[in-house]
Amino acid sequence: MLTFQTVTESDLRLFTESIFKAIGCPTSDAQTAADVLIEADLRGIDSHGVARLSGYIRLFESNRINPKPNFTITREKKSIFTINADGALGLVVAPKAMEMVIDRTEKYGSSYAAISNSNHFGIAAYHAMKALSHDFIGMAMTNASPLVAPTYSKERMLGTNPICYAIPADKQAAFVLDMATSAAANGKLEIAERQGKALPTGWLEDKNGDSSNDSKSLKGGGYLLPLGSDKDHGSHKGYGLGAIVDILSGVLSGANFGPWVPPFVSFLPVLPDLPGKGIGHFLGAMDVDGFIDKTEFKQRMDQWILRFKNAERKNSEQEIIIHGEPEIEFKKVRKNEGIPIISNVTNDLITLSEKYCIEHPFSK
Amino acid sequence: MLTFQTVTESDLRLFTESIFKAIGCPTSDAQTAADVLIEADLRGIDSHGVARLSGYIRLFESNRINPKPNFTITREKKSIFTINADGALGLVVAPKAMEMVIDRTEKYGSSYAAISNSNHFGIAAYHAMKALSHDFIGMAMTNASPLVAPTYSKERMLGTNPICYAIPADKQAAFVLDMATSAAANGKLEIAERQGKALPTGWLEDKNGDSSNDSKSLKGGGYLLPLGSDKDHGSHKGYGLGAIVDILSGVLSGANFGPWVPPFVSFLPVLPDLPGKGIGHFLGAMDVDGFIDKTEFKQRMDQWILRFKNAERKNSEQEIIIHGEPEIEFKKVRKNEGIPIISNVTNDLITLSEKYCIEHPFSK
Repeated sequence: MLTFQTVTESDLRLFTESIFKAIGCPTSDAQTAADVLIEADLRGIDSHGVARLSGYIRLFESNRINPKPNFTITREKKSIFTINADGALGLVVAPKAMEMVIDRTEKYGSSYAAISNSNHFGIAAYHAMKALSHDFIGMAMTNASPLVAPTYSKERMLGTNPICYAIPADKQAAFVLDMATSAAANGKLEIAERQGKALPTGWLEDKNGDSSNDSKSLKGGGYLLPLGSDKDHGSHKGYGLGAIVDILSGVLSGANFGPWVPPFVSFLPVLPDLPGKGIGHFLGAMDVDGFIDKTEFKQRMDQWILRFKNAERKNSEQEIIIHGEPEIEFKKVRKNEGIPIISNVTNDLITLSEKYCIEHPFSK
Repeated sequence: MLTFQTVTESDLRLFTESIFKAIGCPTSDAQTAADVLIEADLRGIDSHGVARLSGYIRLFESNRINPKPNFTITREKKSIFTINADGALGLVVAPKAMEMVIDRTEKYGSSYAAISNSNHFGIAAYHAMKALSHDFIGMAMTNASPLVAPTYSKERMLGTNPICYAIPADKQAAFVLDMATSAAANGKLEIAERQGKALPTGWLEDKNGDSSNDSKSLKGGGYLLPLGSDKDHGSHKGYGLGAIVDILSGVLSGANFGPWVPPFVSFLPVLPDLPGKGIGHFLGAMDVDGFIDKTEFKQRMDQWILRFKNAERKNSEQEIIIHGEPEIEFKKVRKNEGIPIISNVTNDLITLSEKYCIEHPFSK
């Protein structure tokens, strides 16, 4: 039986900030890192919120995170640049890099940043959405620990490598696509596991390359399938998209790539003979107003969104979903009613609280 | 029984150029348009080569293509700009726009162009690959006639909206991903239809929203499914990617979008109250050398490609495929041995030949 405790956003934020400060992050960095995690929880992306806090802390304890990084721009050419994140939390470097992308977009119309020597950056949407208040289109991607096998392979070669685009609208909510390039992301597997449900065929295969409906196959040496699931249904496309994310985030930035991307979990070893530093991200923005009057664009986006909402339904009860809207609904509810934290995450956070002598917001 | 005639690249090119000249295209535009189609045939993308020539000509005959367009830049901001293609063939405007993108990438590090008032541009790879000789990363996408229904909908709202990235390597061939955002592209359906094979479940549904294995369901009012096929397998991701292509190509450029994108086939009417002009493309490039030393990058790409080629195979006989390689193999063979043209396409081209009094390269 699963149990939840509901805590307020502000209590959870204060606790999370305090933990990041306790490992040595400067206050403003701790606030930024906490904001990325809390935003994931508010948006209903529970797998990427405080559920990961203890994972980040374990990486710090394994000396794989630098709480006081000194970022450097290693190369640049007007609208584009590369940052060495000096082992920072991705949660800290990505928002700062996105601010730099926004400054250069203001100047040149578009800007792209490749980032190496970083760690996991939380939800891609947090970073891409920073562009929205400027009426810019934002983009964010990152490579990640290898879990996905290419078409025809049974080796973990790519992460679930997400792609996010955030596009402003007028009266409608912004269009925000934030998707893993695998058929199913880890979060989906965790939910199915918690509910004790068999997984749909086409999400993963076991270590022998046989189809599996059991999420345990992944821990047993299996792998996730790319979006498309099999060759007949376009798995080479999901593999190709994951490859693009890996190449732009990893090969281009000077970070690791493919099977060499360091694992998020601290108990798995980092491979020898690494081709780069840490994990990599790729961020970008484009100024809508450089292409078309921005008011006209946002009105056209409203027209796009309303037309798609009103597309003919297969089932009259089931609305057509516009990307980004479900997360807004979650956020409205959780801002008012608090954030439900599942018991194993609660226990994890209480353990952290004891270890770092930080008061926690849960009842035992 | 299907029959083929094999013709040389140069004969097919000459014929195709002559047809474009016959409808009034200036010589250099006719050469460009022919080059895009012949390149598709050389690369083995038969659905996008001369098989479409009669389709373009029928659009011209319906006054939907301007053979002597006057492109204008309608708005710009340093690295980004918008072109009104004046009803041009996409085959003509996209290569020219890509040259402009390359010039601005040279200057600013990256550049993006949104193009409205255009028509179908052939294979996206042709345009993105123009960046490779400059050691730039190239990107091309386009919206297209609506055939794909969003998740939970049974209405054709999006085209098969392709995304292409072309990324240079050193000794290895460039990485070129050119993918439709539907589970299967039209070309795949045509091949299955010709071979009289039932389609895999998950490619299309009939007009009632029921699963179908018969390609005729599409002509009967059905629709293609997004990459992912169903919600459980991530069709909302394929739908989201198709949406991004539609928004960047159509909404941002001032072209039509969604269900309003004018059909490629001239016998289907253009809808009333269009929100824009023609169809739209979105092209871009980034200068690798602005991020990382370009020689180092290309060597890292070689390392990436070789590592993925050597990923553990599910079946020892089946190689792991690197995107772009199968097309290179096709091109080698067809450069030497000629291009096989299927009989219905041959007949189509002979009809064109008679109509425009142009000598054709086929035996009757």
